[in-house]
Amino acid sequence: MNKPIIGIIMGSPSDLSVMSEAALVLEELKIPFELTIVSAHRTPQRMATYATTARKRGLKVIIAGAGGAAHLPGMVASFTSLPVIGVPVKSSNSIDGWDSVLSILQMPAGVPVATVALNGARNAGILAAQIVGSSNSLIGRKLDTFKKSLEKKVLTAVRQIEKSGWKTIH
Amino acid sequence: MNKPIIGIIMGSPSDLSVMSEAALVLEELKIPFELTIVSAHRTPQRMATYATTARKRGLKVIIAGAGGAAHLPGMVASFTSLPVIGVPVKSSNSIDGWDSVLSILQMPAGVPVATVALNGARNAGILAAQIVGSSNSLIGRKLDTFKKSLEKKVLTAVRQIEKSGWKTIH
Amino acid sequence: MNKPIIGIIMGSPSDLSVMSEAALVLEELKIPFELTIVSAHRTPQRMATYATTARKRGLKVIIAGAGGAAHLPGMVASFTSLPVIGVPVKSSNSIDGWDSVLSILQMPAGVPVATVALNGARNAGILAAQIVGSSNSLIGRKLDTFKKSLEKKVLTAVRQIEKSGWKTIH
Amino acid sequence: MNKPIIGIIMGSPSDLSVMSEAALVLEELKIPFELTIVSAHRTPQRMATYATTARKRGLKVIIAGAGGAAHLPGMVASFTSLPVIGVPVKSSNSIDGWDSVLSILQMPAGVPVATVALNGARNAGILAAQIVGSSNSLIGRKLDTFKKSLEKKVLTAVRQIEKSGWKTIH
Amino acid sequence: MNKPIIGIIMGSPSDLSVMSEAALVLEELKIPFELTIVSAHRTPQRMATYATTARKRGLKVIIAGAGGAAHLPGMVASFTSLPVIGVPVKSSNSIDGWDSVLSILQMPAGVPVATVALNGARNAGILAAQIVGSSNSLIGRKLDTFKKSLEKKVLTAVRQIEKSGWKTIH
Amino acid sequence: MNKPIIGIIMGSPSDLSVMSEAALVLEELKIPFELTIVSAHRTPQRMATYATTARKRGLKVIIAGAGGAAHLPGMVASFTSLPVIGVPVKSSNSIDGWDSVLSILQMPAGVPVATVALNGARNAGILAAQIVGSSNSLIGRKLDTFKKSLEKKVLTAVRQIEKSGWKTIH
Amino acid sequence: MNKPIIGIIMGSPSDLSVMSEAALVLEELKIPFELTIVSAHRTPQRMATYATTARKRGLKVIIAGAGGAAHLPGMVASFTSLPVIGVPVKSSNSIDGWDSVLSILQMPAGVPVATVALNGARNAGILAAQIVGSSNSLIGRKLDTFKKSLEKKVLTAVRQIEKSGWKTIH
Amino acid sequence: MNKPIIGIIMGSPSDLSVMSEAALVLEELKIPFELTIVSAHRTPQRMATYATTARKRGLKVIIAGAGGAAHLPGMVASFTSLPVIGVPVKSSNSIDGWDSVLSILQMPAGVPVATVALNGARNAGILAAQIVGSSNSLIGRKLDTFKKSLEKKVLTAVRQIEKSGWKTIH
Repeated sequence: MNKPIIGIIMGSPSDLSVMSEAALVLEELKIPFELTIVSAHRTPQRMATYATTARKRGLKVIIAGAGGAAHLPGMVASFTSLPVIGVPVKSSNSIDGWDSVLSILQMPAGVPVATVALNGARNAGILAAQIVGSSNSLIGRKLDTFKKSLEKKVLTAVRQIEKSGWKTIH
Repeated sequence: MNKPIIGIIMGSPSDLSVMSEAALVLEELKIPFELTIVSAHRTPQRMATYATTARKRGLKVIIAGAGGAAHLPGMVASFTSLPVIGVPVKSSNSIDGWDSVLSILQMPAGVPVATVALNGARNAGILAAQIVGSSNSLIGRKLDTFKKSLEKKVLTAVRQIEKSGWKTIH
Repeated sequence: MNKPIIGIIMGSPSDLSVMSEAALVLEELKIPFELTIVSAHRTPQRMATYATTARKRGLKVIIAGAGGAAHLPGMVASFTSLPVIGVPVKSSNSIDGWDSVLSILQMPAGVPVATVALNGARNAGILAAQIVGSSNSLIGRKLDTFKKSLEKKVLTAVRQIEKSGWKTIH
Repeated sequence: MNKPIIGIIMGSPSDLSVMSEAALVLEELKIPFELTIVSAHRTPQRMATYATTARKRGLKVIIAGAGGAAHLPGMVASFTSLPVIGVPVKSSNSIDGWDSVLSILQMPAGVPVATVALNGARNAGILAAQIVGSSNSLIGRKLDTFKKSLEKKVLTAVRQIEKSGWKTIH
Repeated sequence: MNKPIIGIIMGSPSDLSVMSEAALVLEELKIPFELTIVSAHRTPQRMATYATTARKRGLKVIIAGAGGAAHLPGMVASFTSLPVIGVPVKSSNSIDGWDSVLSILQMPAGVPVATVALNGARNAGILAAQIVGSSNSLIGRKLDTFKKSLEKKVLTAVRQIEKSGWKTIH
Repeated sequence: MNKPIIGIIMGSPSDLSVMSEAALVLEELKIPFELTIVSAHRTPQRMATYATTARKRGLKVIIAGAGGAAHLPGMVASFTSLPVIGVPVKSSNSIDGWDSVLSILQMPAGVPVATVALNGARNAGILAAQIVGSSNSLIGRKLDTFKKSLEKKVLTAVRQIEKSGWKTIH
Repeated sequence: MNKPIIGIIMGSPSDLSVMSEAALVLEELKIPFELTIVSAHRTPQRMATYATTARKRGLKVIIAGAGGAAHLPGMVASFTSLPVIGVPVKSSNSIDGWDSVLSILQMPAGVPVATVALNGARNAGILAAQIVGSSNSLIGRKLDTFKKSLEKKVLTAVRQIEKSGWKTIH
Repeated sequence: MNKPIIGIIMGSPSDLSVMSEAALVLEELKIPFELTIVSAHRTPQRMATYATTARKRGLKVIIAGAGGAAHLPGMVASFTSLPVIGVPVKSSNSIDGWDSVLSILQMPAGVPVATVALNGARNAGILAAQIVGSSNSLIGRKLDTFKKSLEKKVLTAVRQIEKSGWKTIH
């Protein structure tokens, strides 16, 4: 596999059930990535090192997932000028996900985090690909193909309803 | 001015008081951009055209701001594989901004929008620069300088407190 | 079956478990309808075509259901001057349904969506019938009969409590 | 003026600053309407009479606005099979409008209310016109013209930006 | 059993699993009550009759439970000057109970509803007893005894922890 | 003035701008009351004394208003078996009133508080009168008269609209 | 075991499934504590005694857990000048925990409660240890060791991913 | 002044209008403190240094205030085992303060932050004093005196009402 250009990090192995979706879509799109655990609150020094060295190590985007008082995405963004994508994870003691969403989204002026939907790790992977594809026409074309595949799935369902009636859909 | 590589759009001229912050920070960073009005609900055809031609016209990122049931960022993202940054605008009849935030953030799998804070247009501009800078070392360096300027402002305030005491700060 | 006068659409086959309630009540009321999948984000062109041709094809009302950042009802409303009924669907990654509700309800001035309760597809069907019945006395009378049937169910429960006591009700 | 076909009611004269928008847009569209005060909580008998006689008196749609624990739209809907449009009003002691929205929107199965945005009285008027226009091609055409006027306003702003630059817009 | 002095009503038999708690505590306290189904939206006329005749029939308090856009308690209060206790029921399609709470609690000036906690039917029964006991020393004393029984249960748990340790408590 | 039968208390003199509405409506209804400051957090012993002696001193109902983490109504209810009416006050640092509402409403089983709307002190006064009037036909009749006066104000507004048109109402 | 220096209290034995986490972490850290049931609403006198005697009995911190309209932590804080840590418990009829959080957090000026996360009893125990360790270097060192153990667990997961790949983590 | 034992930090000079309340109450109590600006997002290295050296420099408690996606209190807590008090600040673009509250309160297990009310800086100062006073009988006694002064203010208001009537209070 080629040198990773996207880094996927999360605060705890328990976030992996959500965050693996980001990895899987990057595998589908054949974009090399790395994945590891970095905790803002339990390994703050490791987080600083990870973020400050990211650009030099060849990363172009960092995807960071966290739940509750989710500080990982915003703190990573404070250490690097690479684009950081934040995935709010609905963890077990989260207040319905609101804490995760707001503590990632509401960053102060100067330090943005590109926030996706609650548990939206798959979209984080696609957004990372779009960012890379923004200056890379090969990946841009892959993404256009990917977009068409979304449309096809809808049209397949449309045809099934036309053929068999809506009561056959489950 | 060079050919724009970032497009800033919004649903209504009334969003400009918020969205101009994105334009101003791109001016600071000397990144060429375009700015216009595109309404998802009042000019849906114009929106489709804008989004589907964006990559060909040389844009690398689209920043879209909208308030209330804010459909512009998500609908633009459905028409292009460029990265789309969504700015939730707290418009006059918004329910405290929650409608703007949720209708931009909670996009379904397959069609991400990179959402920033409520009224966070300045951060949208910086994020767009980071996306371009992700594959452009000149802009990357500009952003590192920008980051240092944020730190300097804090340190200036620190020194003022050390010198004159916290009761002198307003 | 007669030519459909009501169109029921939804963003994904997974919405059908909720949206089928609209179809079933229209079957009860013997009002001809069509049902298909139209996704705002994955088939935006199909959505535009569906909505702009609706009136010509004989539709009088469109019922659109969607979850999360639910753009289908509002975008359909931007393409047609037919009344559009929006059904907020509480989909799996929704934030307790608030995203679905707000991104359908809070439409800007000029482009209304008639929003019903979260998962309220049955009421969407009844409302569509009321809209048709507003200018059609036959359907108006059907709806008056339907209203009486609601009352009868309550009175049956009342009588059961009077006869057997409230502890017998489950 | 012709016999009214749309009834606009509200719980209190203090709601008129919001609800007059519904009346004004119906005047623009030249659709005859009536407007009066009907309070669910202070004149329940008047409300029952208003709603049960509405169809006979020639009304085709009722628009009802109320704030706080807003019972007027739902109770009117319980007395008539005409379509009822509910306008949640953000009244002075409302909890940011959430009470008005939820107590109008979340009607139980069997008794729908077509809810529009918080303070969305203008959209209530347009929706009422769409309902009438659903079976009336003259009003349908008026609404298509109205829709084009929305687009034109956007295009005027677009041209102003093109000509004078975005910094000239206020 | 004596003539009922408290009326317990609810919009649907499905509310009985919650509302039976009000009946059970009144049985414990030996205060005669009646229980039936009255729906604001499906039997508005029955509701008006129930509420306007309540005082004459000897009722001193009405307990009304409802979910979603819960209009029963407030509408009953509009028809009678007896104290009305509202129980917000967390019904199946409720938005986490917020709709039930707000549409009962936020009554306009002039028409109060004494609201208890979400699903708090047991407290509604106790509050009804307190209202009756406010002018009835026999019931007042019963309630003082009841209050002591609450204290005793806590003290029993305290002693069990002292004797066996907190790890034995489940 | 006669011996007070209703006690109005609040945590701080700053709540008086809201709570005076309860006193004023009791003056209108000529029901004798007392009003004082009792703070759960700053005078807990005074609160215990106030509540435990209330019945003996002739009070029949206690109205307690508080904001933020509003513990006064619930703690008073823990010391007396008189009915306690809680008024959530939207104080200056309240989170939009949600804290006041929830910390009064959501009392545990066994210790109810009759909660009224946010800042709903006028309704607290009326509810207190209804509780007294529940066993007192003189006050019952006063309240029926009061209810009619509410209706009359609506009908006056109706007639003004009929005579002068809705555009004359402010 | 030594004389307890931390008191853990809760309103009901049913809170113990959450609150036992505070006790367990204090056992790990070998800090002597006591645990019992004290209910603000059912045993207010016991609560007053517990809180007013706490400092004399040698306690240095009180941890109080409660759900719904959670008054225990704030009321204990009103009776003592010891630091009080509040644990919002998500009890069965809580509105998603918001009531517990707000009625503990939003204390008025003068009477603070140190609030931790919803169901965050383990953190309450650690915070109590930190407070004691603030002036006690032995416990301070224990906590530094504890902090390192948190880091080690992350690094173990990191190594497992490096060795076996992220797909092996569950 | 003596060596500071409490550190007050905040992300931006604009937080000082809120955070100065903490300093003022510590001045009242004559407890030596330091105050400076430390930004989690703009000076992450300074934050790490501040927090890791705090204990050695003699601090016993850190008070950290921040708004929006407020990461300062939690990140400081990740670097030190001193107790950290978090003050959610309702900054200008905050979503009604919810973001500040949740991103401080909802810390993961292992790293607590003692959170006080929104804008509750005065209480943060008092809590810091209570923590110090927990092992320091001189400060303990000061706090008991302080508590009595709170009570006295209430009793003064009580007497004014008794003397002059409640209508004289403003």
